Amino acid sequence: MKTFGARLRHAMRHFGPLCVGIDPHPQLLEAWGLTDDIDGLEAFAETCVEAFDGRVALVKPQVAFFEAYGSGGIAVLERTISVLRASGTLVLADAKRGDIGSTMDAYARAWLGNGPLGSDAVTVSPYLGFGSLDPAFRLAEQNHRGVFVLAATSNPEGAQLQRITAADGRTIAQTMVDAAAERNAGAEFGSVGVVVGATLTEAPDLSKLNGPILMPGVGAQGGGADSIRALVSDAGFGAVVPTASREVLAAGPSVSALCAKLAKLQEEFAFLHA
Amino acid sequence: MKTFGARLRHAMRHFGPLCVGIDPHPQLLEAWGLTDDIDGLEAFAETCVEAFDGRVALVKPQVAFFEAYGSGGIAVLERTISVLRASGTLVLADAKRGDIGSTMDAYARAWLGNGPLGSDAVTVSPYLGFGSLDPAFRLAEQNHRGVFVLAATSNPEGAQLQRITAADGRTIAQTMVDAAAERNAGAEFGSVGVVVGATLTEAPDLSKLNGPILMPGVGAQGGGADSIRALVSDAGFGAVVPTASREVLAAGPSVSALCAKLAKLQEEFAFLHA
Repeated sequence: MKTFGARLRHAMRHFGPLCVGIDPHPQLLEAWGLTDDIDGLEAFAETCVEAFDGRVALVKPQVAFFEAYGSGGIAVLERTISVLRASGTLVLADAKRGDIGSTMDAYARAWLGNGPLGSDAVTVSPYLGFGSLDPAFRLAEQNHRGVFVLAATSNPEGAQLQRITAADGRTIAQTMVDAAAERNAGAEFGSVGVVVGATLTEAPDLSKLNGPILMPGVGAQGGGADSIRALVSDAGFGAVVPTASREVLAAGPSVSALCAKLAKLQEEFAFLHA
Repeated sequence: MKTFGARLRHAMRHFGPLCVGIDPHPQLLEAWGLTDDIDGLEAFAETCVEAFDGRVALVKPQVAFFEAYGSGGIAVLERTISVLRASGTLVLADAKRGDIGSTMDAYARAWLGNGPLGSDAVTVSPYLGFGSLDPAFRLAEQNHRGVFVLAATSNPEGAQLQRITAADGRTIAQTMVDAAAERNAGAEFGSVGVVVGATLTEAPDLSKLNGPILMPGVGAQGGGADSIRALVSDAGFGAVVPTASREVLAAGPSVSALCAKLAKLQEEFAFLHA
């Protein structure tokens, strides 16, 4: 089986680099005429699957919006993940998990194992140190999955921590990118990605990452081709995974309108793979 | 209804300050003669409830070990939380969640709302900045719940980030403690706690926190009365919540042995409330 990095790159070349989110937040459920409960959640997710499956490089369900409904919501997430993966669509579970030792190992088994939540990749949060995430990297490697580490996010409060400079002159965000780059060394295209907000005014140096750069904030949140050009050098364009959620989902609940919006954004970011 | 801080302090005075974990990791399931599946998980959790319910100030289920089994595991967690809370035992969901905006809001609703996972308090992770956790603080205040923010953890990789000093001379860990202290200002005993490893050689200054200090790592992981004395001044003893998981759970599956171990540790830490 191919590594996650190889599979993602193949999908990005085939569909264009866009990642689309499944973010069933209550206002969207209402806007789609759905009830704010597990039935509404399930209908929302099914519509997303119908619109996105087989049409996009990466689908990113936002775990929080399923977890808000408890185990019933998680069961909807399981069905969403398994339907997408069964047809070969890559799934990134946006869970932002992070812990240490055997606890981190349990999160890795949940999201990168072969159980009901097993996904192609998961997002993780490194407050406990990059090294604390090792159990996820290990299982990802073993099972040909991917891990995306939060590095530099675009929310203003993030900078207070992520842009602090350590004694070696690097920001914390840069430390995360560099540690991911080390993990990716030697691969054709690595399976350890980073999360870097598309609407930042300044990004860490991504030139040595050799892995996917997930850039949320495209579209409704203000990020576009120009902001990506400002953050990543031309040589790095092939690694950028622009990520849109609300921008696409606002077009629903019509499946054809969702598909049209998706196609439009894919065209907008086609320059990354030109 | 009383604030979480007030309820926790009352419980700590009544039972002693110990918090006990429910950490159903696979090796423990095996040691207890249980199967590594949802049935084994449920039996483990039920035994813990039988041993701990009504006997301890705070019970801390480790969410990862339930999540590893998918929605079925989360359903077991829901039952565990609701049985404990129904009898008045305080429950801290150790979830280490962290995100921004409406996504953080969804996590807050999951763990601090009135849905099936609603708990008395939740642990959160601040890589996205302390301010990104605001939705949790807001809902906690509204619903009389608590939030514990990761500050200084005892795993070696944690120091690489948490002990970096910002331009204002404070470590990141200290920034988190100070921001929590601001949230607790004016309360008799605040509802925003911090997580500080019991086995650290040096802790941030906790003297102004005015809220609970969760100290995992007691017992099997090497922390004890001496390490707490080294990290917290006498005046702060009343805020310390020493937290044991494996140390207690290794005594199972006998309920009476679990209770005996619990009572022994509670006695060991009674000096904190002397």
